[in-house]
Amino acid sequence: MDEELVTELFGETMTLPWKFIVEWITPSEGVIRPIGKVYVSSSSKYQEYLITELADLGKSLILDGKVQSSVSDEFWYHEALVHPTMLSHPNPRRVLIIGGGEGATAREVLKHCSVKEVMMVDLDYEVVKSCREYFGELHQGSFYDPRFELIISDGRVFVESLSKLFDVIIVDVVDPIEGGPATALYTEEFYRALKRILASNGIFVTQAVSPSLYPRIHAIIRNTVTRVFRKVSSYITYVRSYNGLWGFVAGSDKYNPADLTKEEIEKRLSTRLCGKLKFYDSSTHQWMFNIPKPIRETLSRIKEYATDSNKATLQV
Amino acid sequence: MDEELVTELFGETMTLPWKFIVEWITPSEGVIRPIGKVYVSSSSKYQEYLITELADLGKSLILDGKVQSSVSDEFWYHEALVHPTMLSHPNPRRVLIIGGGEGATAREVLKHCSVKEVMMVDLDYEVVKSCREYFGELHQGSFYDPRFELIISDGRVFVESLSKLFDVIIVDVVDPIEGGPATALYTEEFYRALKRILASNGIFVTQAVSPSLYPRIHAIIRNTVTRVFRKVSSYITYVRSYNGLWGFVAGSDKYNPADLTKEEIEKRLSTRLCGKLKFYDSSTHQWMFNIPKPIRETLSRIKEYATDSNKATLQV
Amino acid sequence: MDEELVTELFGETMTLPWKFIVEWITPSEGVIRPIGKVYVSSSSKYQEYLITELADLGKSLILDGKVQSSVSDEFWYHEALVHPTMLSHPNPRRVLIIGGGEGATAREVLKHCSVKEVMMVDLDYEVVKSCREYFGELHQGSFYDPRFELIISDGRVFVESLSKLFDVIIVDVVDPIEGGPATALYTEEFYRALKRILASNGIFVTQAVSPSLYPRIHAIIRNTVTRVFRKVSSYITYVRSYNGLWGFVAGSDKYNPADLTKEEIEKRLSTRLCGKLKFYDSSTHQWMFNIPKPIRETLSRIKEYATDSNKATLQV
Amino acid sequence: MDEELVTELFGETMTLPWKFIVEWITPSEGVIRPIGKVYVSSSSKYQEYLITELADLGKSLILDGKVQSSVSDEFWYHEALVHPTMLSHPNPRRVLIIGGGEGATAREVLKHCSVKEVMMVDLDYEVVKSCREYFGELHQGSFYDPRFELIISDGRVFVESLSKLFDVIIVDVVDPIEGGPATALYTEEFYRALKRILASNGIFVTQAVSPSLYPRIHAIIRNTVTRVFRKVSSYITYVRSYNGLWGFVAGSDKYNPADLTKEEIEKRLSTRLCGKLKFYDSSTHQWMFNIPKPIRETLSRIKEYATDSNKATLQV
Repeated sequence: MDEELVTELFGETMTLPWKFIVEWITPSEGVIRPIGKVYVSSSSKYQEYLITELADLGKSLILDGKVQSSVSDEFWYHEALVHPTMLSHPNPRRVLIIGGGEGATAREVLKHCSVKEVMMVDLDYEVVKSCREYFGELHQGSFYDPRFELIISDGRVFVESLSKLFDVIIVDVVDPIEGGPATALYTEEFYRALKRILASNGIFVTQAVSPSLYPRIHAIIRNTVTRVFRKVSSYITYVRSYNGLWGFVAGSDKYNPADLTKEEIEKRLSTRLCGKLKFYDSSTHQWMFNIPKPIRETLSRIKEYATDSNKATLQV
Repeated sequence: MDEELVTELFGETMTLPWKFIVEWITPSEGVIRPIGKVYVSSSSKYQEYLITELADLGKSLILDGKVQSSVSDEFWYHEALVHPTMLSHPNPRRVLIIGGGEGATAREVLKHCSVKEVMMVDLDYEVVKSCREYFGELHQGSFYDPRFELIISDGRVFVESLSKLFDVIIVDVVDPIEGGPATALYTEEFYRALKRILASNGIFVTQAVSPSLYPRIHAIIRNTVTRVFRKVSSYITYVRSYNGLWGFVAGSDKYNPADLTKEEIEKRLSTRLCGKLKFYDSSTHQWMFNIPKPIRETLSRIKEYATDSNKATLQV
Repeated sequence: MDEELVTELFGETMTLPWKFIVEWITPSEGVIRPIGKVYVSSSSKYQEYLITELADLGKSLILDGKVQSSVSDEFWYHEALVHPTMLSHPNPRRVLIIGGGEGATAREVLKHCSVKEVMMVDLDYEVVKSCREYFGELHQGSFYDPRFELIISDGRVFVESLSKLFDVIIVDVVDPIEGGPATALYTEEFYRALKRILASNGIFVTQAVSPSLYPRIHAIIRNTVTRVFRKVSSYITYVRSYNGLWGFVAGSDKYNPADLTKEEIEKRLSTRLCGKLKFYDSSTHQWMFNIPKPIRETLSRIKEYATDSNKATLQV
Repeated sequence: MDEELVTELFGETMTLPWKFIVEWITPSEGVIRPIGKVYVSSSSKYQEYLITELADLGKSLILDGKVQSSVSDEFWYHEALVHPTMLSHPNPRRVLIIGGGEGATAREVLKHCSVKEVMMVDLDYEVVKSCREYFGELHQGSFYDPRFELIISDGRVFVESLSKLFDVIIVDVVDPIEGGPATALYTEEFYRALKRILASNGIFVTQAVSPSLYPRIHAIIRNTVTRVFRKVSSYITYVRSYNGLWGFVAGSDKYNPADLTKEEIEKRLSTRLCGKLKFYDSSTHQWMFNIPKPIRETLSRIKEYATDSNKATLQV
């Protein structure tokens, strides 16, 4: 057995790892990972949060037992969330982010030279502050960009009270866990509230859970968006830190990222970006928008949608 | 908490699950899954094998601690392995499978109406026999198809001794684990031996480990195939039972599955198939052959290749 | 790190262990141990059984997820169960064992030269047969001793149908797990049935779960025995394979093992034994019958007892 | 399944537990326990420390992955460590504690009315301070008793520099883990240094690891003490939080706690104690000093002892 493996397992002092997190994919399937250095570990009013080194994933943010971002592959998620929608719009200047506490979604938005204003509305000041202070690898300064504005508020309430218009709205909040803080951000009423503050040629995208692990929830999000917007696309990426495929749903009355050709994507990337991308390009776009058949078929069989009085929620 | 969840966790007799497998993704990251009904559990001369129910995955074959096939998603693997290559060839009649003990690779090959002969060479009679007897969900009768022939032999030795020619050769063997039975099936010398028994317009494909978890090994396989064949493609699928993305490498002097257009794929599928597919179609093909940028870039930095005297091996 | 340790952890082929059992001490505290060579693994009508090598414990019998006996320390249990009671009786000739499927309780009984007849009544022929065939380390031939007789029957039914008398009765059955096969073997009605077939100067003993982990159940067994016999003692041992202290309750109208002096024990051991003991002697006896204060006090506060219509059951 | 159990497993928000510690009993056998509320979690110069709620054990101090004290049963350890030795001495006035950072050993010492002075020497100010601040359940004010004095120092160095004499010396330090902070506190040279500051009728005791799990280390401690003191006793308790039996070694030229009769113990307890005990009394004493035969026999076969140049160390 090579030395490195021993050291990895036993550490330098020859002791076995003894602190672990288990991320439950289902109530009976879990991924176990040793915890290394802990940067911050506490509970806010809304959730338990932990910024720590995790074996293999590296420095990670964990909320209520779910890895939200790890340095090893957060860009597979954040770039997938941001760029297809941003590039679909001809000239995105005003962008609203609901959630996005790590600052990494803002970081990607700010790479688009056209952007004049990024407003980010997050519920949990403690988590935002901890990420800003302890997790510079994620935000890379986006919190201090002059175009960036942070609002601490309930996303739903704030959206309903706003009167200005945005070109792009990005919903980057935790999964609709039963009893969690985000279930009201996945309903038809919420999407209608979003549409009210979206320019008529605006476009919106939301993270939409894993379509392979939780196809019912993903389909419901897509179906719900479809009730509000004329052009809707599901698309997927893979995030190792999330233990599988991950889904998104984009909605607009005008634009559909699925319509972008490889050529058009490369052209826009080369003219509209003021920062480098690690994940997204035209091939990656094809990979994300060509959903494999078993997922397409499973999703097509689900007809439900979510309203405030009939929410769809996850139980792990 | 809903009843179903309780039953899932505790079983009907209210006892907690107590038998588990941990599949180690790395020496410090593992997926833990309860074991249900055991169909067969033994060790052959070459490996330890287990056919059992696994929580969430369903009935599964496990070799030396690695899930090889589970009923929940084996077709994400077997269809990805077989169909791009089979469809690239204009008229595949004689097919050789190295490995493939479950009979599921043969099952997919036999769905192509053109096929006259499938020869499958597997090392481990015990495992083949157990799959044939206890895992009909996988082979679905392929072992008894008149076009099918089973040879129990070391794949390397057998290939070097054969003189007939095949249209398609498919390598479906376990990963090149250090000390495991398959390390000699991933070297330049082996691929040259394969080429000797491949028709001049033939095409070959091998499973090629996870390009995200073990990019060095995947790149080495691709680089090694490139030394022997003129047209080479890496492509990927996702297999939840394998805990991530999974890779393949196809090689030929004549055909490249990456060149198939969506239209051509749909046309060939509609005319050449004698059985239904659950995973593969033209969109799935696009998904598989558009590899996301971070994997492409990682692979492109690795220049090594494997020979008999300088094998590349995995350590978990 | 020493070589032995590496081999222990990784096996000779350098792979990490991947099959485990978790023994749940409570619903949230479990001991995890890798499984080695499996001798037999199946389910009978009554329970799931497994004879396997366990890391650190060695060859072990596991019923429904609970280690029943491991070669490393089964004598801490079996000698503790058998000898205090056998030695208390002046001349034990006829002995009845309820349960005792491994044959190890019979093995200890047969070490007493006075014994002419051992009748063992076990419910589960499959488990008895598997132990007899695969676990000679436990029974050491007791199944083939001419004084030994095996009856496959429900212990409760059999006891109620018997008319002969025994000098000593030993109850060696699984814990009274809710829904398990042994809950009717811990009630007042059962103890009265036992008393009917016990000689007037006979003595009885039952395993009585862990008094530290499950004090309520242990106390209920003691209280229930007290309703039927005039002289009753709780005593304890430690069994690493059971993850803690373990308890027994002896009952008789005539004898109390707690009254035996060190001198008397040594005298009887030296004159009445026809086999060697590894665990029990007069110091061990003192250790077992001097129960530490916190257990005594906890037990003294529990006044419940068990009847057929009001059984006491464990939930893990 | 009862409600309580569900809540215990899932918490009130219905999520599965996701933070765990695994305490490794051996490199391949571990006890897994969910972590609840964390009071403090940090690393000092010497060790990693954690004060947290643990499922089933309650509030606990963990050093380098080993549970040191939990509210559920710390008195099984601390009373076992302190009282046999304190009671053996006719009139203990000056007591030295090496280690004992939680303040619980001092708490027990201060229950003896004769005590005029308790000096506690601990290496790790951070841990002592954290216990003093966050773990009042353990020290119960002992840190603020006017008879108590805290010295932060290396125990070995301090002992070698002292010139005053003590009636009783108690060594309450972590196990001699390879590379850990306490290996120099288990050698012949250390015990000779202790003897120099022990009154001629003084008595000393040290914690001495688990004699069942690590018999070689326990025997070496006993053998080493035997080289320095004329009267030496091994004795044992059980500590669930330590996953098994636990051992101690007492040494003196004058007194041996093993010689105390039940009557003498009860008499001294009733006249010399100024506080209540939960664990120790004369029956508990008999339980502790009658070591079961297999441990006695294993220990008797080990002849090694430890010196500064030939230390005995544990590897987990």
